[in-house]
Amino acid sequence: MTTFNPVDLEPRDLYKLLTGLVVPRPIAWVGTVSPDGARNLAPFSFFNVFGVTPPIVVFSPLGSEAKHTLENVTLTGEFTLNSVTEGVLEMMNATATSARLDEFDVAGLTPLPADVVAAPRVAEAKASMEALVRQIIPIGDGPMRANLVVGEIVRIHVHDDLLDGTRVLPERLAAVGRMAGHDYSLTRELVSLVRPE
Amino acid sequence: MTTFNPVDLEPRDLYKLLTGLVVPRPIAWVGTVSPDGARNLAPFSFFNVFGVTPPIVVFSPLGSEAKHTLENVTLTGEFTLNSVTEGVLEMMNATATSARLDEFDVAGLTPLPADVVAAPRVAEAKASMEALVRQIIPIGDGPMRANLVVGEIVRIHVHDDLLDGTRVLPERLAAVGRMAGHDYSLTRELVSLVRPE
Repeated sequence: MTTFNPVDLEPRDLYKLLTGLVVPRPIAWVGTVSPDGARNLAPFSFFNVFGVTPPIVVFSPLGSEAKHTLENVTLTGEFTLNSVTEGVLEMMNATATSARLDEFDVAGLTPLPADVVAAPRVAEAKASMEALVRQIIPIGDGPMRANLVVGEIVRIHVHDDLLDGTRVLPERLAAVGRMAGHDYSLTRELVSLVRPE
Repeated sequence: MTTFNPVDLEPRDLYKLLTGLVVPRPIAWVGTVSPDGARNLAPFSFFNVFGVTPPIVVFSPLGSEAKHTLENVTLTGEFTLNSVTEGVLEMMNATATSARLDEFDVAGLTPLPADVVAAPRVAEAKASMEALVRQIIPIGDGPMRANLVVGEIVRIHVHDDLLDGTRVLPERLAAVGRMAGHDYSLTRELVSLVRPE
């Protein structure tokens, strides 16, 4: 067993260790718009759902690639989350760029107006959510500090063929999770366990 | 496409929808100890890493099953995170109980002293982290409200055979993610994508 004290590690090495151990991570494919109307779309895997009443999600944009997303959510208080699934994985990857571009154009994706927020949805995504920012909590310093963007989900759009009531059929969704480095994990191989009383 | 307004859904149905769409989720197998020395171990999938400088994790214990964990982190300010991998999946499931029990005994697991915190580690886990609570942020009401437990990682323990420097070999870790319902997702089937410039 090797024991690491995080303060002794270079940030890059600590990042590798954390992203290698906390896996698989769900991916927030975040759509935003700047106050002057410039669309942005970028993937973040420091993300999850955290509460139900109300529905709370948190994601953390890190580093220079995240700058536009963080600016937009700060200035507009709105974002969309779009499902990353096998069919759109290459397109999601094409949106992981730090350049000030319209990632919809770059990746050949179709922006779709949302119901409540001005941020665009991804028409090609099998499911999308619309969220309002409740608070943004920076923790730490430098480009790898946490920026907890806490959002409340106000709309959920799901393709009908994924749904059995409000149950989502995982084999129809075919979600993709994030591992470390360049790796992604498919969700085809499932194990079912019944919880104890 | 079906559009849901969360305020129109029963919490149970909204929970199903959110846990079905935000997948795969990493699992925090959280070890705590009460002020009077009673050990607790429980899995939570509303969890992720969110920052690197310093290393920040957030998990959210929900509902009655989470009561002891939330009490312990609130009173002691400490917890451990233990990796959920294929070899310990059944044992992890045995610890998902709401009864006031020593889950180490129930699941046949070995508690291991941590370096910095009083909370126990799981000897059978391939990796463990020790964390100090920075803040706890409740959002919402009722048993399904978010309880954001924000922790800073102060030690990381990893089995040597998983490591190549600070890179974690995913096929050696064999982490398991959480899907909805009774389902878990293996991380055996990976796809590698090189990010654009």
